[in-house]
Parts: sequence; C-alpha cells; structure tokens
Amino acid sequence: MTDKIALTPKTHTTPPAKFSHGVKKGNILQVAGQVGFLPAVEGQPPTPAGPTLREQTLQTLANVKSVLEEGGSGWDDVMMVRVYLTDVDHFAEMNGIYNQYFEEQNLTAPPAARTTVYVGLPAGLLIEIDALAVLG
Amino acid sequence: MTDKIALTPKTHTTPPAKFSHGVKKGNILQVAGQVGFLPAVEGQPPTPAGPTLREQTLQTLANVKSVLEEGGSGWDDVMMVRVYLTDVDHFAEMNGIYNQYFEEQNLTAPPAARTTVYVGLPAGLLIEIDALAVLG
Amino acid sequence: MTDKIALTPKTHTTPPAKFSHGVKKGNILQVAGQVGFLPAVEGQPPTPAGPTLREQTLQTLANVKSVLEEGGSGWDDVMMVRVYLTDVDHFAEMNGIYNQYFEEQNLTAPPAARTTVYVGLPAGLLIEIDALAVLG
Repeated sequence: MTDKIALTPKTHTTPPAKFSHGVKKGNILQVAGQVGFLPAVEGQPPTPAGPTLREQTLQTLANVKSVLEEGGSGWDDVMMVRVYLTDVDHFAEMNGIYNQYFEEQNLTAPPAARTTVYVGLPAGLLIEIDALAVLG
Repeated sequence: MTDKIALTPKTHTTPPAKFSHGVKKGNILQVAGQVGFLPAVEGQPPTPAGPTLREQTLQTLANVKSVLEEGGSGWDDVMMVRVYLTDVDHFAEMNGIYNQYFEEQNLTAPPAARTTVYVGLPAGLLIEIDALAVLG
Repeated sequence: MTDKIALTPKTHTTPPAKFSHGVKKGNILQVAGQVGFLPAVEGQPPTPAGPTLREQTLQTLANVKSVLEEGGSGWDDVMMVRVYLTDVDHFAEMNGIYNQYFEEQNLTAPPAARTTVYVGLPAGLLIEIDALAVLG
C-alpha cells in the first residue's frame, strides 16, 4: 500500500472545491490545473498576477513549480504539460514566454511533452496549465 | 509483461468507437471520458440522466466510479479528475455538486487533483469527466 | 534514478517551443499533442496532410504511432487517447476513421480509453491527438 499525499504549497489559495493542488502516490505526481493567481493573502479572494498573458503565464508556471517542489520534484521530472489558452492568437507569444522560462530553469532532462488547446476559462484568466510527473 | 485489461461495467453503453471505458495495466488505471448516460438498456440509444447539470454530474461521477470499481479500484486511488463543462457559468454549481458527492463518499485518501475547462460537447451533454488512478 | 528520454522521430517537424514530441521514463511514455502534419521537409514550414478530416486524422494517428515506436512502444501499450476536434459534427466521421484505422493495426491488447472534446485549434487544423502509454 503506497500512500497518496496531497501537495499544498503555502503560497496557494484554497481550492474552490474538494480537490488537491497536487497529489503524489508512489512515483507519480499530478499537478492540478494552475492559473495565474498570486500567492494567497489571508482574507482576500484569489487575484491574478495581472491582465497580460506574460504575467499570467509566468505566475502559472511558478504555481505549477511550487506544487512539484512541495512533492520533492521539479520540472525535470515532468512528462506532460497541458496548456489551455483562450485565444489561438496567443500561441506564439505564449511559446516565447514558455521558452524563455524554461531556458532560465537550467534543466538537465529533456523538456516535457506538451499539448496546447484553446478553451473557455473563467473571466480574466488567459491561461491554465497542469502537469504530470514521474519521479525517481 | 503486464496485461492491459479493458474495464467494461455491465451498466455501460457500448462505446461509439473502438475505445474502452477504462483500461488497467500494472498499477495504472485510466477511465475514459464519461458523460451522464443512464445505465444501458438493450436496444435503446444512450440516454442522459436528465437535462440538468445536477443530474448529469451525479450520473457522470457514478459512471466514473463504476469503471474504477470494475478495475478493483475506487475514488481513493484517483490522482487526476478532468472536468469538461460547456459553460463557465456552471462552475460554481458543479463545484457544489462535486463537493457534496465527495463528502458522501467518505474517502480516506486526500482528494484528487483536478482541471476544469470549458469546451464543446455533443448536444444535450453539459459535462464530461475522465480520471487517472494509481492503484496499490 | 531512471532516465527521462526525449522521443523525436526523424519524420517530425521541430516543435514550435521547448517541448518534446514524446518522453519516456521508466515504464511511462507520453506522446505530445500531434496534428496532421506531413513528414518534415528541410527548409519548409509544417504542412498538414490535407484539408479534410480523413487526411488529418490518419496523419495524426500515424504521427502518434511514430512517437510510440521511437520509444520502443506501440498502440498496444496505449492507455489513453485524447482527441481534440474543432466541430461536434465531426464526431461520427472521426469515429469511422478511427475504427477503421485501429482494425487495420491488428492489435492484441484491448483498445485504449479515450476522451473526445471540442476545442479551438490553429487555423487549418481539424484534429489533435495525444496519448499516454504504459510499457512492459
């Protein structure tokens, strides 16, 4: 019997429903869909890092990373990144931000696989990202 | 060599294409996208549990659970729940139904991670859910 | 420590960002979102196999298979197929193509689970597919 543990970075707002920001069981770590919310402030509602794609993408990636690190993992372990955008016209800009972000992470393993699709998101949110990691 | 087995609850309608409602291989169990169809009736086309988000969400969750149980698993093993809604305005209501459902499941492990996005679905369907579980 | 390796079939165009067409680590293989691009031609931009759903679906499935095979795997190992279409009216036609394709693959294991949702994709693309496999 392997324990399934919830990963809840201190910086994260409480999920709006009964789900975990991340879970780890055995060598599998799953990060829930993250958005560009700033670190939680007691008594305040979740607030996006800003209205721009750049601000939200960088904050979203930081939020995914926090969950990975809470589980003793990191980007090098990530197998799959799912990127949800709201506008096809954001693809090129998101890729530029994504590339620069990962260049600065100095990873040793090859980059994760990725799927990007265009969906609806709650008002004000331009991007959502989740990730699957295999540890070890 | 580990066997990959198909999980086909007796209550489920035949998939509309060559895919399985669930598969299990080793300690990984994947549930295909489930919708709010009532238990299959021989000779009748699949029928949603009702037109409302509540009816469809509860039936969809029951359908996911049936596949998990067919594989000797259950919600406690689920790492990731992907919720597809058709309307951003359904988020709060779905969360309420989701929370109540899981409170009633009396789970011992922490809740799964989750991503919710807003997509198109076939006419009459308001929600689709799939799930990834790690057993053991 | 298990190595994470990138899977890059020779036929594939360079990804438009820092992600891999596929990655393998331990017994888990993840294929990135594939579209219906023809095998890459040096110095030319990626070109879809054709404007029709049939052409793009078959090319997309071939592209997924190439990544699986680059990792010493194949369709029999696939647990989950995620199909992204742009139009609900394409569901029946895609299922017909999907079924015929898999009948011709002569697989020995049961078919993978699948989720199909309707999203936005870049102009000219009608379908995107990714896949998760468990080897061994």
